[in-house]
Order: sequence, then C-alpha cells, then structure tokens
Amino acid sequence: MALIVLKFGGTSVGNVDRIKRVAELVTKARGTGEEVVVVLSAMSGETDRLLKLAHEVADCPDEREMDMLLSTGERVTIALLAMALRGMGLSARSYTGRQVGIMTDSTHTKARIERIAADRIREALDDGIIPIVAGFQGINEHNDVTTLGRGGSDLTAVALAAALKADQCLIYTDVDGVYTADPNIVPAAKKLDKVSYEEMLELASLGAKVLQSRSVEFAANYGVPVTVKSTFVDGTGTLVTKEDRDMEQVMVSGVTGDRNQAKITFIGVPDHPGIASRIFGPIGAANILVDMIIQNVGQGDLTDLSFTIPRGDVHKAVDLANRIAKDIGAKSVELKDKIAKVSLVGVGMRSHSGVAARMFETLARKGINIMMISTSEIKISCVIEEQHLEPAIRSLHEAFELGRA
Amino acid sequence: MALIVLKFGGTSVGNVDRIKRVAELVTKARGTGEEVVVVLSAMSGETDRLLKLAHEVADCPDEREMDMLLSTGERVTIALLAMALRGMGLSARSYTGRQVGIMTDSTHTKARIERIAADRIREALDDGIIPIVAGFQGINEHNDVTTLGRGGSDLTAVALAAALKADQCLIYTDVDGVYTADPNIVPAAKKLDKVSYEEMLELASLGAKVLQSRSVEFAANYGVPVTVKSTFVDGTGTLVTKEDRDMEQVMVSGVTGDRNQAKITFIGVPDHPGIASRIFGPIGAANILVDMIIQNVGQGDLTDLSFTIPRGDVHKAVDLANRIAKDIGAKSVELKDKIAKVSLVGVGMRSHSGVAARMFETLARKGINIMMISTSEIKISCVIEEQHLEPAIRSLHEAFELGRA
Repeated sequence: MALIVLKFGGTSVGNVDRIKRVAELVTKARGTGEEVVVVLSAMSGETDRLLKLAHEVADCPDEREMDMLLSTGERVTIALLAMALRGMGLSARSYTGRQVGIMTDSTHTKARIERIAADRIREALDDGIIPIVAGFQGINEHNDVTTLGRGGSDLTAVALAAALKADQCLIYTDVDGVYTADPNIVPAAKKLDKVSYEEMLELASLGAKVLQSRSVEFAANYGVPVTVKSTFVDGTGTLVTKEDRDMEQVMVSGVTGDRNQAKITFIGVPDHPGIASRIFGPIGAANILVDMIIQNVGQGDLTDLSFTIPRGDVHKAVDLANRIAKDIGAKSVELKDKIAKVSLVGVGMRSHSGVAARMFETLARKGINIMMISTSEIKISCVIEEQHLEPAIRSLHEAFELGRA
Repeated sequence: MALIVLKFGGTSVGNVDRIKRVAELVTKARGTGEEVVVVLSAMSGETDRLLKLAHEVADCPDEREMDMLLSTGERVTIALLAMALRGMGLSARSYTGRQVGIMTDSTHTKARIERIAADRIREALDDGIIPIVAGFQGINEHNDVTTLGRGGSDLTAVALAAALKADQCLIYTDVDGVYTADPNIVPAAKKLDKVSYEEMLELASLGAKVLQSRSVEFAANYGVPVTVKSTFVDGTGTLVTKEDRDMEQVMVSGVTGDRNQAKITFIGVPDHPGIASRIFGPIGAANILVDMIIQNVGQGDLTDLSFTIPRGDVHKAVDLANRIAKDIGAKSVELKDKIAKVSLVGVGMRSHSGVAARMFETLARKGINIMMISTSEIKISCVIEEQHLEPAIRSLHEAFELGRA
C-alpha cells in the first residue's frame, strides 16, 4: 500500500467551505487505497492577524512568545479538518508538531528541524487513522514550541514524507503547478510537467513563491518526489524530482523575477586588502543576507563597492553601512531600492553555452540596463531597474521560446 | 516573600488595550515585592468564534478535536501578555497547560485535574521570571490536550495556587465582587466583603456567574483564599474563605436566580416500586443532570412525576422521556421550559429557623406560585415561572434586608 503525504496551504483551508473541499480530496485519496498523512497551514490571513496583535502589544515582540502565538493557527485548521473528516465517517485525528515529534533547534521563528520521531503517526496509520498534522511548527529541547519560518508547512510535509519514507509528497496550493514564468506577467507561460530539485531550488529562492526553498533542499537531500498541484482545479501538477536525461534537453526551464531587492553602494572606498571583510563581517553578523557583490575597477587608490540585500533589511543595513563607511574611511553610502532581479533557470545550461549572451542581447535590445550579474551552473541573474522587470520577463520568455508546446 | 496567583478573565484580555492594562496590574503586583503567577482566559468572544467554526464543519464535532481547537485561545493571550510585559522590561514567559504539567483525566471538553507538577513554574519563579499560564487546559496520559469546561480558567488558577501553596489567589473579572443579588436586577444590592466557600459554592452552582463552581470546591478542599475583584475598578473585592464566627451571624448572604431550567413531567405513571430507577437510570446514563425531583401523592395506582434539567438538554431529554414513557406505560410527557429557580443562600440558616417560612410568605404575598422546592443546610431554592424571577429576587432581597449597610 502506497503512503502519500498531502499538504494544503493557507488559501486551501481559508474558510469552512474550503476545509470541506480539502476533506473531499483527502477522502478521494484514501478511497484509492492509499495510506494518507495530511499536513496543514493556518487559514490564510490568520498569521498576519496574529502578527498585527503582537506588534500592537510590543514594539519588538519576543521571538519565543511569537512562536507560542503563531503556532495556534495550524492547531485550529487541523482540529477543524479532523472534525470534518470524522463527520464524514472517516477515522481522522489531529496532531501538533510536538505530538508528531518534530524536534528542532531553538532558533525561534526560523527553527531548523533536527529529527522527526513520528511514532504517533505510524501508530495512527497502523490503526487505520488518517493523521492530520500541524505544519510550520516543532518543539525544541526545552519543550518550547518553535516555528519553521514563512512557508514552513511545506518543510513539515517534505520532512515528514522523508521520515515516513512516503512514496509521494503532494503540495496542494492555489496554483496548478510550476510555470515557465509567472502567468500574471506572461500569459503565454506554460506549465512544466517536471522540474529537477536543483532548478526548483533556484526558482524557489529567486522569488517563484510556489514552494519554500528549504523544503526543496530537504526533498533533494532525501530524494522525496514532490508534486505541486491545485486544490481547486483537477490536473497533474508539476513533479519536482531528480534530474533525468529527458530534462537535460531543456536549456532553460523558466524565467523568474524578484522585487525583494535593494542595492547599497560604498563610494570611494580605500582599495587595499582586508577592506571587504571589514564591510561584510559586520553585515553578516547583523544577519543581513547579502546576495550579489560587485567591485568597480579601482581608479587610483579608491574604488566603489555595491551589494544587494532583501528590501526588508534596508533600514538596518543603511545604519550599519554608514557606521562602517566612517570606520573604513569611505566617502559615502548610496541606497537604491527600486531594483529587481530577473533570472533564467535550467539544468541544460550546464551543457549549453550562449545562454548568457542571448540573455544580455535580449535585454539590450529592449533598452534595459544591467546593473549587476551573477551566475551559477544552472542560473543567470541580472539586477535591473524595478520598472523594467515585467518587460524583461516577457521578452526573455519569448526569446527562449518557453511558451512553445 | 508572598506568592500570589492572579487570574484574568476573557473580558479583561478582550483587546490589545486591555492586555496592556493587565500588564500594568501585573507590574504593580510585582512592584510590591510579591512573587506573581498569572493565569489567563482566551479573549472574550474567541471561544464562541471557534465553536461556531466547529459546528460549521461538523454537525457533532469530535470532543478530542474540540479541545485541540479551543485550547488555542489561551495560547494567544498568554503569548501577547508575555510580549507586553517583556516590552515593559519585565522578565515574563508564557506556559501552556502541558508545560505547567497540568495532568487531567481524558474526559475531553470537561476534564478533571488529577495533579499539577508545576516544576517549570517553580524554576521560572526561582529565576525571577513571571510565569504567564494558559488557563482552561491540561494534558491527559496520551499527551493529548484537554480542556476543563466553561470557566475552567478559574479552576486552573485555584489549582495552581494550591499546588504552589500560594498565599492568595486573585480572580480579576468584570465585576468588583460577589453581591447580595445581581445589581442589574436589584440596584440596592450590596457587595459582600467575605463569603464562605460553602456559600460561594451554592451561589456559583445556582447561577451567580462570578466563579466557576468546581474552582470553589477546589479552593475549599485545599483552603486556598480566593479574592474576586475588578480588572477595571480599584477596590478590595470579595474574599472567599473558610467560614468564621463572624459569618455565622449572617442568616442570608444573598439571593440568586437561574433561568437555565426546564421541567419535564411524566403524567399517569404506574405507582409501584422500581419506577423511579427505570426513569432516572436512562436519563443519568445520557449525562443529563437532574436537579430537583417531585412525585405527586398517588391517586389510585397512578402518579405524576416531575424533574428539572438544564435547558440545553431539553431536546435530548424529551426524546428520551417519550421512549421511557412508552416503556413504563406512562400516559404522557409534558415539557415546561419557561421556568426559573430563585434561591436564598447563607451559612446562618444552619442555626436560624424560619428562613423558609419567610421566603414562601414573601413570594405568596407577591402572588408568585411555587412549583418545586429544594433545600440544603445553607440554601433554599424555589422553582417559579420565569416571568416572576426578577420580582421574586427583588422582593426577597428586601424582605431579608440584604441591602442594609
């Protein structure tokens, strides 16, 4: 008997009618004779409601308490789905992260899973019970509740699938799969039947919000086949799996954009060894994630140095950068926050040259200036003005013929 | 250093401003040099909101799942209060029923506390931390969340005070103490400075909604001094404590009314031994709580038999009664649901006769018909038409001079 893990996101359990729809999907999966484990997110909007309350009672809410607060959302949905299933005559039971034995470290609000016991899940399955598991949460060595960060329910589902050696992990969401580009920007975008873990990881971390990137990493490490599909529309979805021969034929799988970008530039930095570490040491210590870095060719003994960060960290980063500038004797600090990143992803880039050239040419022909470039084996990203993001995505999608059947 | 347990009800934590008000009260209590443990209810309205969701997804929601659902409300308030206190520079930390070690039986939705470990609370106190504890919830031997029934946060507070051998348990609520009658009905009602556990127990179970009756029982058993006072208005409140000489002088402490009453009558019941058990056996087995019972003097070999039950059980009880009537050969079953119970309570009744007579006389003079009577050592209750309840309370309050200084 095959074992599958089904995960439903916040919009899929956003109200009573949708919870009933999920109950039907679970019943159907069960009806095909499979063993089923369900993982749920909180109702859409609930996490934001709780966050708002937290910021109303305290300027800088304590993170342990934040986890106590936020972990209630999933407990509500798992109880409601278990009730709905039992009301339909099925044997179902809800389990919190603690009850499932999801042990994490103590990094509150973005804890990492250390191990999953899952004894109660196995017992439930042996007893013919459908376990309904709270996503996004675990417990640390002090017996305190932790949460896994935004999108953490995907991680719960994939990690549970790995722990249970499940045959499949199905991620039900409000889109019907992974596309060659955001269909809201590129109407001709085509759904992909299959992507590799590596591509999905680049897509996830580059801003395609279909799967949380840590869950993709986890799936890759443990070889869990993950399928992304729609709760609301029937379809086969997109399978995220190991790279195979078939995939290698595809040079570019998708084009993606990310507006969550800001650029900070140090102007007139004394150009001598050790300067970079005096800049990026304190920034790393402040937990600001630096993405791209470029250093201009020095003119005389001064140079300029730019790097990109998530937009949410701008205030913290600018304050810090001004202090660093004083410290290292840089002339000034400049902020540019209306930038975006456009990226091409595809495992085929490994064996095909010319992708970068065609990308630069396409953007140039549209009159789009490239500020920064970064590449990996299966990805090329360019930082551009934010206003050019959508035209850039559309023209690249067309240039690489991603919409073809 | 004295140790006090402070409990705040749902209206006291009903919104962000009120939670901040509670944070101030906690800070003030702490400022007087006392060790403080706080117990909270869910925000007012939250439990009803969750109950509504449950009844929308299932006709008869599973009780284990109900506890998973309802126990989220207190987790939200404890996290928010802990954040608020930490924002004010105090060291505070939230704890769930499980983390406090509140072990209960497995009667979901109305579990009984079996023991309290409270190790983490003692550790927190030793570390100078203010523990903020989720009321209303515990955990059973299967590691599943249980809840203690409506008003269960009072019980958590009193039980925790007993386990910690606290010097005092303060129940903060939206009224400033226990009154001789409901001030909404009797404007001349007087706040009592002190009542005995026994009186409070009668008052609580008779419908005065100031304290949950099981919490009063618990306080009496463990000799926990409980003070009921207002979150919103300064004042000394009402102390609930052991009976003392002083109290014995008071014949009647209060008059209380309860509309949650319905009466079922079996007409034409064959009057022979064993009939009562054939009626009340099945009713007890259906978990319907029978309060008063009267049996008319038999005419020939038939008799009538009436009993009162909570109004919420009427449908279940009538269905059952009709089946029983058929079974025992009774003529018919009659329901009367517009009835109420008016009661006088006072430890002084033990040593004073004549209270009953004056009560009946007072009601008679008002033209109020008494349908049923029940008495205990410190209480007399009469079942009357519901429409007569308020006049009955007012005239008894006056007749026993309860409003005098």
